[in-house]
Amino acid sequence: MNKDDSSSKQRLRLWIQLLRTTRSTESELREFLRLEHDTTLPRFDVMAALYRAPNGLTMTELSRYLLVSNGNVTTVVDRLVQDGMAIREQQANDRRSLRVSLTEQGQQQFTVMAKAHEAKVNALFADFNSEEIEQLLNLLKAHAHKESPHDEPGLA
Amino acid sequence: MNKDDSSSKQRLRLWIQLLRTTRSTESELREFLRLEHDTTLPRFDVMAALYRAPNGLTMTELSRYLLVSNGNVTTVVDRLVQDGMAIREQQANDRRSLRVSLTEQGQQQFTVMAKAHEAKVNALFADFNSEEIEQLLNLLKAHAHKESPHDEPGLA
Repeated sequence: MNKDDSSSKQRLRLWIQLLRTTRSTESELREFLRLEHDTTLPRFDVMAALYRAPNGLTMTELSRYLLVSNGNVTTVVDRLVQDGMAIREQQANDRRSLRVSLTEQGQQQFTVMAKAHEAKVNALFADFNSEEIEQLLNLLKAHAHKESPHDEPGLA
Repeated sequence: MNKDDSSSKQRLRLWIQLLRTTRSTESELREFLRLEHDTTLPRFDVMAALYRAPNGLTMTELSRYLLVSNGNVTTVVDRLVQDGMAIREQQANDRRSLRVSLTEQGQQQFTVMAKAHEAKVNALFADFNSEEIEQLLNLLKAHAHKESPHDEPGLA
């Protein structure tokens, strides 16, 4: 096996490990949100994105944010609007595009869930100490910046 | 802010960064598999799991492996069987449970895709050097072992 082969195998191992860590954490959080907060992970993610955008987001912005297909986001937003957690409004300066934002009730509900979600994440990653987290964050962030040099809004 | 609060925020930042890295990589791989290999990420994942299990897997084993719901896996396996890439067989010692495995054609097709997939992963993570990858792998693996002490079969 030459050097190129071995580093390509090593990067593949890293990718599989990243995927495994993310999927098992997501699966724990999905169960937690379902059982304790009667909600889904996509709904939580959409609310988190809207919470961070006080002026609202267009559907395209929201999808880019979440890196999921527009179709799924539409279903989630429809339900949030139906439940009184979000509203769709036309912009004064652009009549074609609708912006979605959280209602006050939506903001309140998200604040409660976000606190519980943070505590759950803290418990799931309790075995990482402060130094290890910094190391991981620095490595992953350096990669993210090389990948996409522009600033991206936060995910959750 | 007390110490507990700050480490909980730090762990949340780590989780968001892990999610972001994984989702953006998945999104790149999804596009790559669709455009270059006319296939989907779930189909690739199912084939990868079956490829690593020469004696086949039950649907339950396969779902546990992939950390996705049984429903989606069933659809993917149905299509693989239809396309001649996989077969469902009854076990001699357990007539109730069916095992799924790849056909020779399925194995051949997966081998070609896996090579291309590995090259793509290598390109996507090219900015990590060997030392950084080892660091990341060690940190993530230590966490994974604490989380689930039993051995798990590989994901991709």
